[in-house]
Amino acid sequence: MTAMAFDLAQGVAVLERTPAVLDMWLRDLPEPWVHGTEGLDTWSPHQVVGHLLHGERTDWMTRIRIIVEQAGDRHFAPFDREAMLRDHADTPTNELLRAFREARADNLALLSAYGIRPSHFSLTGVHPRFGDVTLGQLLATWVAHDLSHLTQISRTMAKQYRDAVGPWREFLSVMDR
Amino acid sequence: MTAMAFDLAQGVAVLERTPAVLDMWLRDLPEPWVHGTEGLDTWSPHQVVGHLLHGERTDWMTRIRIIVEQAGDRHFAPFDREAMLRDHADTPTNELLRAFREARADNLALLSAYGIRPSHFSLTGVHPRFGDVTLGQLLATWVAHDLSHLTQISRTMAKQYRDAVGPWREFLSVMDR
Repeated sequence: MTAMAFDLAQGVAVLERTPAVLDMWLRDLPEPWVHGTEGLDTWSPHQVVGHLLHGERTDWMTRIRIIVEQAGDRHFAPFDREAMLRDHADTPTNELLRAFREARADNLALLSAYGIRPSHFSLTGVHPRFGDVTLGQLLATWVAHDLSHLTQISRTMAKQYRDAVGPWREFLSVMDR
Repeated sequence: MTAMAFDLAQGVAVLERTPAVLDMWLRDLPEPWVHGTEGLDTWSPHQVVGHLLHGERTDWMTRIRIIVEQAGDRHFAPFDREAMLRDHADTPTNELLRAFREARADNLALLSAYGIRPSHFSLTGVHPRFGDVTLGQLLATWVAHDLSHLTQISRTMAKQYRDAVGPWREFLSVMDR
């Protein structure tokens, strides 16, 4: 198993697909799929999309800009991971999907305009917990964060049928992760 | 956390979306994403799509038909979970995506033609390991199986960046599941 080094084109290929994948998957999907959770203090697919939207509006590009512009103060603000529980609780899922798609497209246009090259990957900003982090690590994390939340959505949906599948639950390890 | 009872319309809503979701996600995606695995004896996204295609062609509808038609012998044949490692190793991913989409559409048309009603959910077939299983359990498992493999694909892709994300790995539990 060889890990991939971060590559901008390969990373963007994932980032640009995520909103369309989510739209194809969750738009007009019956409500119980969209609002089911994994239990107490876990998120529904609806809440995950709200979280992705909030990150798109407040976090990723702000941090990238801090690094790329090498501003005087390169400290990142903490990211509010649960803002969507306040801000988007009553927003229809279809609307969140549309807003996420627009915000991501805008961000990728900005990213492209920066003309980032591999030589920039080692520029740093200051994370509130980790201290110095590089642009390459931040960009890779943006990608992995998308994939982590796609994992969460499919796992959360699968678990809704943990009883309905009867004995097959034994073959579906996702139910108990 | 309340589990969902199986509902045909809700289940089909997932089944009919899966091929389009996979197509949007994996078509023309850079090769390292599509062929990376989680390590020895784990599957790449390419192999997962081949597995889904094989199930579509040989397993799900065959078993559903055995139950719905209440044939003389209601024993299911074992499912070859690794057939794709032989049959589809050299098939381009884009071709597997197209074939899966067609096979799924054909199967959902057949399923619809059966006119299955909730009163049929308790009809049974005989699983090689579990013994009697119901139509409702089989249909729910078809849905959960899709979702389980979507989970696997996103988790496998995320892991490719387990080194690239640097210190953020601590926040990305998907990397170590």
